[in-house]
Amino acid sequence: MCNAGSNRPWCLSSYAGVMEDLIQHAEEKQPSSALTNPWSHQHESMSRDNEKPKVVGGFVLVHAGAGYHSESKAKEYKHVCKRACQRAVERLKAGALAVEAVSAALVELEDSPFTNAGMGSNLNLSGEIECDASIMDGKTLRYGAVGAISGIKNPVLVANRLLSEAQKGKLSAGRIPPCFLVGRGAHDWAVSHGIPLCPSEKMATKFSVSAYKRNKRKMELAEKMDAGQNPIKKRRQSSENENGSECLDTVGAIVVDQDGNVAAAVSSGGLAMKHPGRVGQAAHYGCGCWAENACNMNPYSTAVSTSGCGEHLIRTMLARECSAAMRSEDAHQALLEAMQNKFISSPFLASEDSVLGGVIVLRCCRCVEAQSSEDIQAVLVEFLWSHTTESMCVGYMSAQDCKAKTHISRLPAGAVPGRSLAIEGGVCRLMGTAE
Amino acid sequence: MCNAGSNRPWCLSSYAGVMEDLIQHAEEKQPSSALTNPWSHQHESMSRDNEKPKVVGGFVLVHAGAGYHSESKAKEYKHVCKRACQRAVERLKAGALAVEAVSAALVELEDSPFTNAGMGSNLNLSGEIECDASIMDGKTLRYGAVGAISGIKNPVLVANRLLSEAQKGKLSAGRIPPCFLVGRGAHDWAVSHGIPLCPSEKMATKFSVSAYKRNKRKMELAEKMDAGQNPIKKRRQSSENENGSECLDTVGAIVVDQDGNVAAAVSSGGLAMKHPGRVGQAAHYGCGCWAENACNMNPYSTAVSTSGCGEHLIRTMLARECSAAMRSEDAHQALLEAMQNKFISSPFLASEDSVLGGVIVLRCCRCVEAQSSEDIQAVLVEFLWSHTTESMCVGYMSAQDCKAKTHISRLPAGAVPGRSLAIEGGVCRLMGTAE
Repeated sequence: MCNAGSNRPWCLSSYAGVMEDLIQHAEEKQPSSALTNPWSHQHESMSRDNEKPKVVGGFVLVHAGAGYHSESKAKEYKHVCKRACQRAVERLKAGALAVEAVSAALVELEDSPFTNAGMGSNLNLSGEIECDASIMDGKTLRYGAVGAISGIKNPVLVANRLLSEAQKGKLSAGRIPPCFLVGRGAHDWAVSHGIPLCPSEKMATKFSVSAYKRNKRKMELAEKMDAGQNPIKKRRQSSENENGSECLDTVGAIVVDQDGNVAAAVSSGGLAMKHPGRVGQAAHYGCGCWAENACNMNPYSTAVSTSGCGEHLIRTMLARECSAAMRSEDAHQALLEAMQNKFISSPFLASEDSVLGGVIVLRCCRCVEAQSSEDIQAVLVEFLWSHTTESMCVGYMSAQDCKAKTHISRLPAGAVPGRSLAIEGGVCRLMGTAE
Repeated sequence: MCNAGSNRPWCLSSYAGVMEDLIQHAEEKQPSSALTNPWSHQHESMSRDNEKPKVVGGFVLVHAGAGYHSESKAKEYKHVCKRACQRAVERLKAGALAVEAVSAALVELEDSPFTNAGMGSNLNLSGEIECDASIMDGKTLRYGAVGAISGIKNPVLVANRLLSEAQKGKLSAGRIPPCFLVGRGAHDWAVSHGIPLCPSEKMATKFSVSAYKRNKRKMELAEKMDAGQNPIKKRRQSSENENGSECLDTVGAIVVDQDGNVAAAVSSGGLAMKHPGRVGQAAHYGCGCWAENACNMNPYSTAVSTSGCGEHLIRTMLARECSAAMRSEDAHQALLEAMQNKFISSPFLASEDSVLGGVIVLRCCRCVEAQSSEDIQAVLVEFLWSHTTESMCVGYMSAQDCKAKTHISRLPAGAVPGRSLAIEGGVCRLMGTAE
């Protein structure tokens, strides 16, 4: 944290430069064939420079997945993102830490039957629901995760409880508390910690069941068509039937609270027709979400949540890579380069014909400005989303806002999903009286 | 790969410098209070500079865990490391790729009733065996892992099969093959792929069952003593009973094959008395093992396998961090700094009073030297181990050797486990006729 004169609204001289760049981006840049509207979402707080700030209340950015969001369901997706933002902001206004607020947003996203997380999750090959979720607290750098868990209404609550239990220290006889539980063991741990259950059949929706039946028929047809062909040809032909970007709608959220702490979370029902026991990026440390408060070595707090093809996001450790990239001065450029070099062109995915994923990222920096007679504490939040899938649904809200903004970001016309990317974002300044 | 004159035995000028440093280390440095014998193990191949090389056959380094190895069982631990090395070298001599050789070494380590992996694994809180394992191929950068799997004799074989199946491309109807399976689903997948089963009761040994009974009594006693005290005091008192470094003997191996490909693997029965469903670093991408072949951006191939307290190794992503550190010129110094800054003093473990883990690392570089009339292809292998636990048992062997060397590395007298470290290693030059 540093002091800046009233004529220099941002804390660091480099930040002042970034701000100018961002405004330029918004004013001058036009969507290219591969990039849509960089920095088009200049948040409303931007225009409040002359208003007297009251409180630093935090900010939330959520996603309802990178995949394909049809126009017909756009309203539902936006609506759930809006509710998730409101839920987080309610908690932030009540003084909750980022990790509590991000968990509240996730519960709302999981509870929607339209998202592939919690209620309404994709069914696996056996027609069952197995969920993955994780949460990370930028303040303590702790992490909790569950994989392939069944019969739990809100998997994120188990991940969050694992995180908070581990914070209490060692178990009896010096045993180290777990940070990652899977399957039946995770379910039993959740039960013993009073996490609400939900029978699997109630978590499946009419939509998820009919999608399962449709996928099963499609699979059987593909296998029938392939029968008799040699295995290599069979594999190649099968992949041509893919519409991989259809069902990747993992959900996630990232939050900064009024003390400048960040947190991130992610939750997923996993790929449709996945093998039972398959765990995707949502439960994988460094892959599904990441949160790191500012420290001596780094003035920025960052939080990231990902969505898309779990195996691609795991092998590239995309959440952690994007967070690490945020140490660069220009957040937009850094994310663009990370998505291009560490994801689309990653040597870890060299054999993949299409690389499917999306991220939401926030980075913030605290500063104190002398304004009239009192010191004002401000937090500058830069928030972004980027995806290689056809679309990504996001929502965001600051605690100073009356309602959330939502948006379905789409690749530009003609761009190739899995090989091109969209990147957008904005900036928001949160202000209040310094402590 | 680059050419060097016959008077310059190592491929890169910087490498020649490194070599001199290593020899200096061995000659001049004495063990300090926190570091034991840096580079004390100058491998026998070092003295063969004047012999005419015959074949580049590869190199293997294995570990039977970082933890505490009593003198009374030292012979057994060394013996299993020796057999694991021999098994890998047999495969390398038969022309196997690194990933096959590393898998063969792991099978031998898992089959030993003395190690905490496969046969003889620690029992969990319910008295069951649940294993974690993973494998990474530096050539393809693919990874396969299983977590909390029961009833499978060699968990590493499931991880390896996941890796090789994923290499075949997509499944029917364009489904993406899994890289990480857990619990019952992982077991069923293994069965359907013909991986040998083993009833859990046969995997438990007299030793693991008696350790379980002893731990259970210890736990019950600790809980009884704590009863009636307030929860925070209870937690703190409990942790004083800990002897955390007793049962951390995860196993692992790293290999470079005759083509210079690297691979790494790790396997573990997990912490004694862990909660069912708990997954440790051995199944966690970037935490249990890492392997990356040299590429345009990096002349070194590196492979890493870790052991110790899973939660500490996960939260610091130690395998990947050590691999990344190996891009520095001085491998020994780089590992020393990585263990100090990214593990012992990691901000991710700031709240831990003791940080327990160990790593084995190899890094290699290919070169061609003009020697008399024919071009000679050489691979310089630098291999290291480092640990913060009381001891770590390692073995290593090149395909040119008749037998493996084994060693139980110990912290110097007076050093504090979990806060001090030992680091040792050596160099080995593999030579053969260039392709």
